[in-house]
Amino acid sequence: MGIKPPDSQTYRYPLMNQFEITILGCGSALPTTLHNPSSQLVRLNQKLFMIDCGEGTQLQMRKFKTHIGKLHSIFISHLHGDHVFGLPGLISTLDLLGRTGDLNIYAPKEIETFFKPILSYFNPHLSFKINIIALHPDKFETIFENNSIRISSFPLKHRIATCGFLFEEKERPLHIKREMIDFYHIPITHIKAIKEGEDFYLADGTLIPNHTLTFPAAPPRKYAYCSDTAFNPEMISYIEGVDVLYHEATFAENETARAHETYHSTAREAAEIAKAAHVKKLIVGHFSSRYQENDILLNEAMSVFTNTELANEGLIIQL
Amino acid sequence: MGIKPPDSQTYRYPLMNQFEITILGCGSALPTTLHNPSSQLVRLNQKLFMIDCGEGTQLQMRKFKTHIGKLHSIFISHLHGDHVFGLPGLISTLDLLGRTGDLNIYAPKEIETFFKPILSYFNPHLSFKINIIALHPDKFETIFENNSIRISSFPLKHRIATCGFLFEEKERPLHIKREMIDFYHIPITHIKAIKEGEDFYLADGTLIPNHTLTFPAAPPRKYAYCSDTAFNPEMISYIEGVDVLYHEATFAENETARAHETYHSTAREAAEIAKAAHVKKLIVGHFSSRYQENDILLNEAMSVFTNTELANEGLIIQL
Repeated sequence: MGIKPPDSQTYRYPLMNQFEITILGCGSALPTTLHNPSSQLVRLNQKLFMIDCGEGTQLQMRKFKTHIGKLHSIFISHLHGDHVFGLPGLISTLDLLGRTGDLNIYAPKEIETFFKPILSYFNPHLSFKINIIALHPDKFETIFENNSIRISSFPLKHRIATCGFLFEEKERPLHIKREMIDFYHIPITHIKAIKEGEDFYLADGTLIPNHTLTFPAAPPRKYAYCSDTAFNPEMISYIEGVDVLYHEATFAENETARAHETYHSTAREAAEIAKAAHVKKLIVGHFSSRYQENDILLNEAMSVFTNTELANEGLIIQL
Repeated sequence: MGIKPPDSQTYRYPLMNQFEITILGCGSALPTTLHNPSSQLVRLNQKLFMIDCGEGTQLQMRKFKTHIGKLHSIFISHLHGDHVFGLPGLISTLDLLGRTGDLNIYAPKEIETFFKPILSYFNPHLSFKINIIALHPDKFETIFENNSIRISSFPLKHRIATCGFLFEEKERPLHIKREMIDFYHIPITHIKAIKEGEDFYLADGTLIPNHTLTFPAAPPRKYAYCSDTAFNPEMISYIEGVDVLYHEATFAENETARAHETYHSTAREAAEIAKAAHVKKLIVGHFSSRYQENDILLNEAMSVFTNTELANEGLIIQL
C-alpha cells in the first residue's frame, strides 16, 4: 500500500473508569468534633461500595452529597461499634427512600445476633431484601466478582476477627487504535482477536503487528483497606503493589505499648507495611481521639514512607 | 422598737437554679444536612437529662460541648429509629470513658427486644449498670422525683405507643429576707416555720407578719416535650400553663392530609395546642426533610400563637 498509515504511535491510556475513595469517617472509637467513626465509599466501575458504617455515616453521605440510593453493597471489617453502629439508620433511610434492589452486606457472621433483632423490630416490612454474606476472617477469599472487578477479604490482626478488603480491577483487553483499524479496513469480526493480542494479515500477506493496531490497556488498579489491625507483616502478600493502601495509624510512636495492647498500629508501623508491600500511596486514618491535630502521625509515617497522606472527612482519593 | 427596720420591700426572686434546654437534633426520620434526628438535653437543678437519642446524638453533644459524663438519665419517647439509634454509640462511649454511676433509661418496654442483644454483644462488661425503666404510654405517671423536681410521662397520639414528658420544679419554700431576720433577732430555730409562711411574735407580743420577713418563692417552672404526635387536644390537661412547650411540627398546612395519615402535626396544629394550653412559649421541631428552610412552619404557627420559635441544632432555651 502506497499510503502512509496515520501517526498514532503516541502512547496513551484509553479513558479509564472512575476508581475513587471518599472518606466519610476516619476517627476511632471515641468520636470527636474533628473525626467521625469509620466509613468510606469506593466508587469503582459505576458501582458504589461502602466499607464500614460507623454512627453518623448516612449523615456524612448527605454532607458530602453522595447518592445514597446508588449504594451497591456494604463491607463490614469487624464488629466493633465504631465500624457498624450506622447500619440501622442507613437501612431505615434506604427503606424510607423506597429502595427495591437487594443490598448485600458482607460481614463477620456474628452480625446476625444483634442486627436481626433490630431489623425485625424497626423494619419488619423492608422495601428491599438484605443478604448477609458471612466473611471468613481467617483466610483470603474473593467475595465479589464481575467482568471487570474483583473484591477480596483477607485476615487482619485485631482483638476480634477482622477483615481487610482488596478492591481490584481485572486485566483489561488491549485498546484498539480506531484510526489504524479504519486505515487497514480490518473487518469487525477480527477486532476481538486483535484486542486479545493477535496480529493481522492483509490480503497481500503483509503482517500488521498487533502493537501497530492497539494501545496497551491501563494497568489494573488496586485499593486495599486495613483497619483495624496491629502491625502485621503477614498481610503484605495480599496488598503487594496496590495503588493506594488505607492503613490505620491510631497512635504515635510514644504510644507503641498502648498500640500493641489494643491491637492497633502506630503511624510508623503503617508506613513500614506500606514500604514493605511496595504500595504507591499510603493513606493513614483511624486516629485516636487524643490527637487534636494529626501532623505528628503524618511526620512519623513519612519518615519511613514519603508518599503518605492523612485521611480526613470528605477527602477524595482518585486512583 | 424605735429603730426603723431596713427597706427591703422591693420584690425580687432569689437566684434560681438553671433550667435550660439544648436542642441536639430537630429533624425527622430522613436526616438532612440541616437537621439531625431527635435529641435534646434538659439541664435542671444541676442534673443533665436527655430526651430521645437519634443517630449522631453523641456527636452533637461533642459539637456543642455538653459534658457527656454528667448525663443523669435518658428518656425515650417512642421506638422509632430516629429517636433511638444513637443509644448504642452513646453507651459505648460512656463505657470507654469509664462511667461508674447507674444510667436509667426510661423507655417503652419493647426497647429490650433489640437493645439487650446489642448491649450483650458490644458491651458484655459495661463499666456501669443500665436500668431500663418501662414507661406506660397509656397514662400520666410520675417517673422521677426528688426534693425539687418531678418528671412525668403522658400519652401522645402516634403510630406506635409514644410518651410526652413533663419536667417540673416543685413549689419552693418562701425565701427569707436575711436583713429582716437579723434586725428582729429572730432565732434560727424559727426560720423553717417562717419559710413555710408563719408570722413571728417579738418578745413584747408585736406581730411581724410573714410578708415582712419573706419574699415569695419563684413560681415553679415547667417544660413539656411532645414529639412525635398527631394533633391531640387530650394532652392539654397535662401541659396546661407550661413555660415552654416543644411540640412537633413536621408539616406545613398544605400537607395536612399527610400529617394525619402519619400521625404527625402541622405547625398550625402545634400552635393550636400551645394556645389552648396557655403555654408561655412554643418551640416547634421535628421538621420534615422536604423543607429547605422552615419559615413557612414558623409563619403558620405564629398566625395562631405569636410566641413561637423554630428549634435548631445548638439552640439553648432558658426557662
